[in-house]
Parts: sequence; structure tokens; C-alpha cells
Amino acid sequence: MKAGVFDSGIGGLTVVKSLLENNIFEEIIYYGDTARVPYGVKDKNTIIRYSLEALEFFKNFDIDILIIACNSVSAYALAEIRANTSIPVVGVIESGVKALENKVKNKDSNILVIGTKATINSRKYEDALVHLSYKNITSIQTGLFVPIVEEGIFDGEILHSTINHYFKDLKNIDAVILGCTHFPLIEDTISKYLKNAVTIHSGDAIVEFLKSEYSCHTKFNNTTIKFFASENPQGLKQVAKSWLKELI
Amino acid sequence: MKAGVFDSGIGGLTVVKSLLENNIFEEIIYYGDTARVPYGVKDKNTIIRYSLEALEFFKNFDIDILIIACNSVSAYALAEIRANTSIPVVGVIESGVKALENKVKNKDSNILVIGTKATINSRKYEDALVHLSYKNITSIQTGLFVPIVEEGIFDGEILHSTINHYFKDLKNIDAVILGCTHFPLIEDTISKYLKNAVTIHSGDAIVEFLKSEYSCHTKFNNTTIKFFASENPQGLKQVAKSWLKELI
Repeated sequence: MKAGVFDSGIGGLTVVKSLLENNIFEEIIYYGDTARVPYGVKDKNTIIRYSLEALEFFKNFDIDILIIACNSVSAYALAEIRANTSIPVVGVIESGVKALENKVKNKDSNILVIGTKATINSRKYEDALVHLSYKNITSIQTGLFVPIVEEGIFDGEILHSTINHYFKDLKNIDAVILGCTHFPLIEDTISKYLKNAVTIHSGDAIVEFLKSEYSCHTKFNNTTIKFFASENPQGLKQVAKSWLKELI
Repeated sequence: MKAGVFDSGIGGLTVVKSLLENNIFEEIIYYGDTARVPYGVKDKNTIIRYSLEALEFFKNFDIDILIIACNSVSAYALAEIRANTSIPVVGVIESGVKALENKVKNKDSNILVIGTKATINSRKYEDALVHLSYKNITSIQTGLFVPIVEEGIFDGEILHSTINHYFKDLKNIDAVILGCTHFPLIEDTISKYLKNAVTIHSGDAIVEFLKSEYSCHTKFNNTTIKFFASENPQGLKQVAKSWLKELI
């Protein structure tokens, strides 16, 4: 089985990490729109337009399933992508919500959703959680986490003061949805600040989701992966080597 | 006289502020490529391609001069823009260097240049300063300053820890070139950390440069300004109102 993985840039590599650790696919074609990253600060219409252009890119490959490893795209462009292809398209929001539902049974739990401006403004996580009867949901746009991670900062004073800036008024968070594929890289620091709240990670969530909803299984000994980018593919490959290490 | 002002997004508004304070032009057409901002993390070829598309936009207006209010574009695409138009095109780097030359006479002064990845990697400031016989130049990519300013943070713990992260090893800086049009918004905090080093501000520098090299003068009672953006022009106008206040 051959999967396409689409992200606005490098963040989707955290989803690729989960896919590789589970050897779900025989081959992965990764495409990052690095020339126009970040999507999280952009408008709905722009995100849809860029996502449909990415879909055209994937039509050059004979993929069996397309994974949208970007929360901003999953929030705004999933319906439009699906309307323009016959293959299954899986986003990180529906899988993240499903993962939360599996892990957090008490509907009175305090759920925190963090993400880019686009993801949070879409209210996609919030609406899905309300639909599942969760009552206490807080959403925060944590716009600085992406550039901090891209700067290679995963801990230390800058990250701590930024986390404190966003989270200082929060109390007793039981679970946090990392609604951006950059955030797993600072998961430990976030989780520690939130006194070890349950964390929902887009990559792990999508693996669970693919297994339960698409009958994907860990069955390949090895996954071949090819990286493409709209600019500087070498830069993308370097980050992939640093984040994915012996997996590629 | 009618000027076009081009920036990748909102940063160029600090240049507009200087232009408006000096009433140099009768009319300004501002265009921000907000759909693809930021340019500072992008490749040379991408910056050139996007800049030539912006030039096409300005061809719809009968402008007399084009001001590139973006350091990353000035660093990489100035020659290509000039090759594709017959009107004068002025960038912020040549004017910034000229402003420094006017303010800092001692060639042994410690000069700090800060900017985006694109601007610093281009070495455009450094090469020009070396050509002018300045001997002690330090360049630093301060990638987090743009998102911090865009988050509306102009002071406080996050900015202080970020400034400290970038500047902690610097000693006795005499002058700092704010090589990004976002940075004037955090000029006071930077200057204070650097013990009141002389600061070079792209907007003020370009006003001086237009006066000395292009015979522009403060002669209009009022400047009409029109804002255009590749996405969310309302958002751009809101930022313009907040930054430029009674000037517009």
C-alpha cells in the first residue's frame, strides 16, 4: 500500500515518524509545500487553493491513500480535497478526536486544544468534541510554538516563557490535543507544564485511526519513503534525517 | 509623485510610517503578499519569483517609483525587479548601509546586523559594510523576532529571553542595523539590551536616501494611501490602523 503524506512544510514529519514506527505502508510519498509554509496563519480560501495544488502533485504518483499531516489543511480543505479525488483522504483532526474519545472517558474532563490561528479559528476540534458531549473545552492559538520548533528550540527559557504566556491562566487540564504536527517535538515540555495531562499526538492518532477505520496493519518489514518539497527539498531531507534518524 | 511600496506582509508598514511622517509622496500604493508571508525563511529563487509577481501587480498602477520595504526581497531580488521595469526601484539595504555610514564614522566600531535567514545568508549588508572598510561586523539570524512581533509582543519575558538567546555573547555593540522591517516595533527593547547602541531603521534610512539620492522632499500636505494584499486585505488594514494611527 502506497500512501501520500501532505503537509505545509516539515511538521508532517512527526506523522511520518509514527507511520514508519508502525510500518503501516510499503511506500510513502511525502510532499511539503515549503515554499509557502506556514499555512497556519493563512486564510481558508488560500489554504484550500494551495491544498488542491498539492493534490495535483500527488496525481503524478499512484497512491492508494492520502494522509493530510497538517491540522490547518485538515481543518479547512478536507472536503475540497475529497471532492477532487477518488482515493481515501484522511485528516489529523478526525483521528485526533477519535484518539481523545478512546483515552478520555469522563465527559467533564478539562480538554485543552492548541493549534495555529487557522486550526483554532476553524473550531473543528471544538465542534467535534462538543458533538461527543465533552463539556469543558478550552482552545488557544499558540502561534509562537511553530517558529520556536523550527528554530530548533525544544526546551529552555524561551519555550518556558512562551508556554507560561499561553497557559498561565489554565487550571487542572486533564488532556491536551496537540493540534499542530510541530507540537510533538515539544510534547514533553508542554506535558510537564500541564502536570502530565494526557496528550493527543496527531501521528499516533492517525496510526490508530488507519488501523481501526481503514484496516491498515503493521505488516511491512520496511517502508520506502520519498521526500518532495516545493522549495529546498535538501533542507526537508536534512530535517527528516534529524527527526526520523534510523527510521529512514 | 506616486510610490509603490512592496513587502512580503505587514512589516513594510514601518517603512510606510516613515514615508507618511515625512509626507514625501502624494500617493502610496502598498502591496503585501500576505498569502505567502514570510519570505525571510524562503530560498532566493522563490523570493525572486514572488517579487516579480508583485512587480506585475504594481504595473496596474501608474507608479513613479517602487520601494522595496522588505529586507529579504532587497537582498535577493532587487536586480531582477530592476531588470523588469523602467521606473526607479529602491531597496532598504543600500539605504540602511548609507544611513549607517552617515551615523557611524569610526570604521573600528562594532556593527551588529540582524535579520531573517534570507537576509543574513545573502551577506548583502556585510559585503557592503566591508566594502566601506568597516572591520568589526557581526551578523545574526534572529528568526523568532518576526513571529514575536506578529503575535503583538513588543516587550516582556518572551522577548527578553529571545533577545538574550541571540545576543548573550555580544560585547560592546556600537550600532545595530535592524535588517527587517518588523524590528522597529521592538527597537526600544533591543536598543536597551545593547546599552543604547545606535540603531539603523529601514524606514528612516529610506526617507534619508530618497531625499539625498532621488531629490524627494517633504512637500505634500497629505499622502493618500491604498492598501492591497494577496490575502485578507482587511487584516492588513487593521494592522495599519494600529501601527500608523492618525497618519492614515
